[in-house]
Amino acid sequence: MSLEKRSVFVVSDRTGLTAEELARSLLTQFPQVHFVTTVLPFVDSDDKLKDVLRQINEGGEENGSRPIVFVTFVNADYRKQIDQANALVVDVFSSFMGLLSRELNLIPSWQAGYSHGVTDQLRYNSRIDAVHFAMDCDDGVNPDAYDQADLILVGVSRSGKTPTCVYLAMHFGLYCANYPLTDDDFLDDGLPPVLIPYRDRLFGLTIDPQRLHEIREKRRPDSPYAKLAQCQLEIRRAEGMYRHHSIPMSDTSGISVEEIAATVLQRSGIHRELLG
Amino acid sequence: MSLEKRSVFVVSDRTGLTAEELARSLLTQFPQVHFVTTVLPFVDSDDKLKDVLRQINEGGEENGSRPIVFVTFVNADYRKQIDQANALVVDVFSSFMGLLSRELNLIPSWQAGYSHGVTDQLRYNSRIDAVHFAMDCDDGVNPDAYDQADLILVGVSRSGKTPTCVYLAMHFGLYCANYPLTDDDFLDDGLPPVLIPYRDRLFGLTIDPQRLHEIREKRRPDSPYAKLAQCQLEIRRAEGMYRHHSIPMSDTSGISVEEIAATVLQRSGIHRELLG
Repeated sequence: MSLEKRSVFVVSDRTGLTAEELARSLLTQFPQVHFVTTVLPFVDSDDKLKDVLRQINEGGEENGSRPIVFVTFVNADYRKQIDQANALVVDVFSSFMGLLSRELNLIPSWQAGYSHGVTDQLRYNSRIDAVHFAMDCDDGVNPDAYDQADLILVGVSRSGKTPTCVYLAMHFGLYCANYPLTDDDFLDDGLPPVLIPYRDRLFGLTIDPQRLHEIREKRRPDSPYAKLAQCQLEIRRAEGMYRHHSIPMSDTSGISVEEIAATVLQRSGIHRELLG
Repeated sequence: MSLEKRSVFVVSDRTGLTAEELARSLLTQFPQVHFVTTVLPFVDSDDKLKDVLRQINEGGEENGSRPIVFVTFVNADYRKQIDQANALVVDVFSSFMGLLSRELNLIPSWQAGYSHGVTDQLRYNSRIDAVHFAMDCDDGVNPDAYDQADLILVGVSRSGKTPTCVYLAMHFGLYCANYPLTDDDFLDDGLPPVLIPYRDRLFGLTIDPQRLHEIREKRRPDSPYAKLAQCQLEIRRAEGMYRHHSIPMSDTSGISVEEIAATVLQRSGIHRELLG
């Protein structure tokens, strides 16, 4: 059976990222439809808006059913104009803004750039500095900087440490280092000496050995490093270490970076605040 | 004048990231209010929900005005129960889902894990691989891998290359390398030899010299590297190179990583599709 096809447009006078993400969340709940999505950000002039309206109307004619358009316009006039398109227009901001406006008894400022703009230079710097910190402290490098770390992720090679660190830095401004557990770290029951002073900032990642084996095979086929037995051994020892030292841990098998990051934040009790 | 205080809760049976981002976008339009936000993800049992309801009701009592609660529950029963809270409940999914359901003439599947879950192992792997690629090809390292790059960002030190690369990898699965322009690259009008074969994948970042000076001063105070004259010289030469070789470019001064990434995608004509 071929899926029904439907054009989707995400239109914004800013980055369109909020609308794109919400659209994705909503549309994945209709797996029977094949959505063909076009994102049109930075629509901030009458000419650009005219061109967008033309694209939307043509998109409908092509597919035989009217497009679905997700909109986040700060500009009130553009919000009105896009409503004239031959489409289902989902105005992401307006519906909620009315609700919030009544609740707070305040008029929204409708200012561009508050979301995904640099409203606060300090916050902006802290994200950028955090990303650089994650890069500089990736894979056990630069342990002298652990003093500054909010969190040190530990785990065997390819258990998900690097993407999680980078995500936590980028979106929450956390200073996050990561330390790879290797055979040398499993010689006795102790923590790797370099981690001992930072015991309360450690978070352990683990992964299903079969899944780890597949990931490593792709990276270095037929290597001792990728063998299932080696993966099983490393994971058993890593989990043993976490338990022995009461390090909180999380299994990264089959879950996304977003889910790992949200889990790490929750279990480590770090205050969560999305930046950017 | 002290700001009015208002409790905000973001509640989800998944990561809560979609709701947290939308809440932030909406609430920043009311700068007169100091919102105190608590994010409660992974609320996936009756006991957890009961605890959440207790927190919400207490949050209202503390502040004298009822809390605002942003909700993305897949579980229909939880959506109903949270409506009983003494709060303004903003059900992010429901309002739009009804609209979409009628338009598509389909019932939403209400399945958890479609958004920010691993629905598609291939896509998931491509994001993770892309992040590792960005780490491995940061700061001019590993030019042998440029063959695989979708995009190579060029720019002087601290013009925003690294965070942009990592963002494009994490959220769009792009293979993005970055190459730092240094004095050696400005000896003549030519492109750095290592970049010549990849001319059509280059994207130049530039930044206001004064802003660059401030960023570098913070990093290496009173160094020749951070001097304003040095920053002015490097930026003039970098922009000259972009123009001379028709490399698309973007100014990163005072804009967020999200804005830089969205701009790079738009100007380089790469198809934009949010993953994860």
